[in-house]
Amino acid sequence: MVKTGFSSMHVQACLVSSVILNLLFVTYIYLGGQWNLSWSSGAAAEAEAVTSAGHGRVYLVDDENTEPGSECNSAGPDYSHFSTNCIADANSWTSGAAAEAEAIAAVSCSGHGRVYLDGLVDDENTEPVCECNSCYSGPDCSRFLTDCILDANSGDPLFLEPFWKQHAASSAVVVAGWHRMSYKYNNNVYISKELERLIRKLHAVVGNAVTDNSYIIFGAGSTQLLTAAAYALSPENSSSPAAIVASVPYYTLYQQQGEYFNLAKFKFEGGAHKWMNKSDSSTYTIEFVTAPNNPDGRLNKPLLEGPNVKTVYDRAYYWPHYTPITAQADEDLMVFTLSKLTGHAGSRFG
Amino acid sequence: MVKTGFSSMHVQACLVSSVILNLLFVTYIYLGGQWNLSWSSGAAAEAEAVTSAGHGRVYLVDDENTEPGSECNSAGPDYSHFSTNCIADANSWTSGAAAEAEAIAAVSCSGHGRVYLDGLVDDENTEPVCECNSCYSGPDCSRFLTDCILDANSGDPLFLEPFWKQHAASSAVVVAGWHRMSYKYNNNVYISKELERLIRKLHAVVGNAVTDNSYIIFGAGSTQLLTAAAYALSPENSSSPAAIVASVPYYTLYQQQGEYFNLAKFKFEGGAHKWMNKSDSSTYTIEFVTAPNNPDGRLNKPLLEGPNVKTVYDRAYYWPHYTPITAQADEDLMVFTLSKLTGHAGSRFG
Repeated sequence: MVKTGFSSMHVQACLVSSVILNLLFVTYIYLGGQWNLSWSSGAAAEAEAVTSAGHGRVYLVDDENTEPGSECNSAGPDYSHFSTNCIADANSWTSGAAAEAEAIAAVSCSGHGRVYLDGLVDDENTEPVCECNSCYSGPDCSRFLTDCILDANSGDPLFLEPFWKQHAASSAVVVAGWHRMSYKYNNNVYISKELERLIRKLHAVVGNAVTDNSYIIFGAGSTQLLTAAAYALSPENSSSPAAIVASVPYYTLYQQQGEYFNLAKFKFEGGAHKWMNKSDSSTYTIEFVTAPNNPDGRLNKPLLEGPNVKTVYDRAYYWPHYTPITAQADEDLMVFTLSKLTGHAGSRFG
Repeated sequence: MVKTGFSSMHVQACLVSSVILNLLFVTYIYLGGQWNLSWSSGAAAEAEAVTSAGHGRVYLVDDENTEPGSECNSAGPDYSHFSTNCIADANSWTSGAAAEAEAIAAVSCSGHGRVYLDGLVDDENTEPVCECNSCYSGPDCSRFLTDCILDANSGDPLFLEPFWKQHAASSAVVVAGWHRMSYKYNNNVYISKELERLIRKLHAVVGNAVTDNSYIIFGAGSTQLLTAAAYALSPENSSSPAAIVASVPYYTLYQQQGEYFNLAKFKFEGGAHKWMNKSDSSTYTIEFVTAPNNPDGRLNKPLLEGPNVKTVYDRAYYWPHYTPITAQADEDLMVFTLSKLTGHAGSRFG
């Protein structure tokens, strides 16, 4: 979340273009059918020209449509006619997927694992198999591994899974095969306005952040947004890279990402306290303020200030299930993440 | 797709860590309910410790579960008991979502637009509204805009949408609210082994690529993979950046991304032909070979070779609906993308 008056429009544009909107829905790749399409050759340039036509689109016809009651096979077998853009078996196209999901969800895996629709399948490639929790094994996850070593280095928000199971009906979603195929949303934007509206509503209901006069920017997890923020706040043509700093102890990912990308624009420099007497220097400094802090939970405050200091607030844990919400956060640049709010870490959304 | 014997293990590790696996499912953020959790305070460090426990998890209880027939409310109102990890209303939790999806899909928008489950809602915030195709307007997209300017600069693979509507039942997926919440897949990996298996099977069925002895690496669209490949193939500690080149005419994104990231390791240098007499030079060169080419559809071949030359094959359009498949591609590093195969450009998967 970035304040509208913050820095310059350059920063906004930079941040927006830094992040990639990721909405990947499970797609059943249609391996069984024939790839008989109405135009089976022709170069990529042709494809681009055809697909860019917008309204008057070329429609595909295939001859493997075996779904009962389909009204979509009006095209002749010579592919000389274009089919209409209709839904095959329009009145019950969701029932198979619904039954499949309920059957999968009913597999208990002894309470020590789970089966997913897109999970591993057994040797005969027919049924998904149980994926066991750490320290459990066997086809139904019933075997406890006594010599198992537990990795307590980092967290995984699976503790929120029962909440979603208790709200199974209200959280279920049917994804159609043609869901949001375009690169863009309506009106030529890459950001879902509806999702943005819900995020503002959420912060208002919870009371943990002011979203008025702010831009909402999406990323593939807050991981991506943190680097995007550092990139956007670093000066464009500086002789030396901007220094990224944070209070000790800090989240190790800040350092890992800074070192990994090895950018000309910024460099991770460690503890912010070392820079407290240098804040009047000419070095451009970006302080990551993590509140609550990872790993110690403290509500950190910035150590640095000055004309060459910018502050990025990592608000990942500023939700009522981690810390008392005593006030609405209202900083210029705040980063939140779905993984800590709802537990959907695997969805990569911040 | 990267050959196992290609370059060094460093390249593999680098590529793997360059890309982010994005599986974002639509999540209905539960705004209506109370956020009454079984432990409403406590610091982030506590949360990490609890969540890392793996098997013996802390379960949440809320008191707003109003779904009929729920067996998940065994905990007392004082939150002193932990609920079991059960699915509320286990026998019909998908029916509401199924009915909702069918109702949405039945809205025709005059054949000039579509309604999505996660789409914009009207002023009363009750029903999603039609999102019209370019040059159409009105609540039901029936109004043709006569002064409309058509943007033919780039493509959008909506021409494949009718295929998925014709296979509505077999492509529908019900996503449960607790689907893949963890950061990782089973066995501590970030890559879906099942998806990898299906990708190999797909290339074998289509006959457009050899996948034996290759790694399959996922990215947020081939856009991300192209930059990841350039990053991985650039030397680590070179005095000058590696040169990225491509045959003219080339896909403009190569240039845009190279200039945008402004990395120390590589720089976009334009047409490959200018480097044909320099290929024995000490400058490290990475050639993007686009086959079929964007924008002209030609099956490009590499122009450069030599000990300091690496080649990245952009195979986005090497599918039978764009070009005849005359042979299985078998290069060391090939990039494919879901957007050109199935038309799901918005899903960002390559």
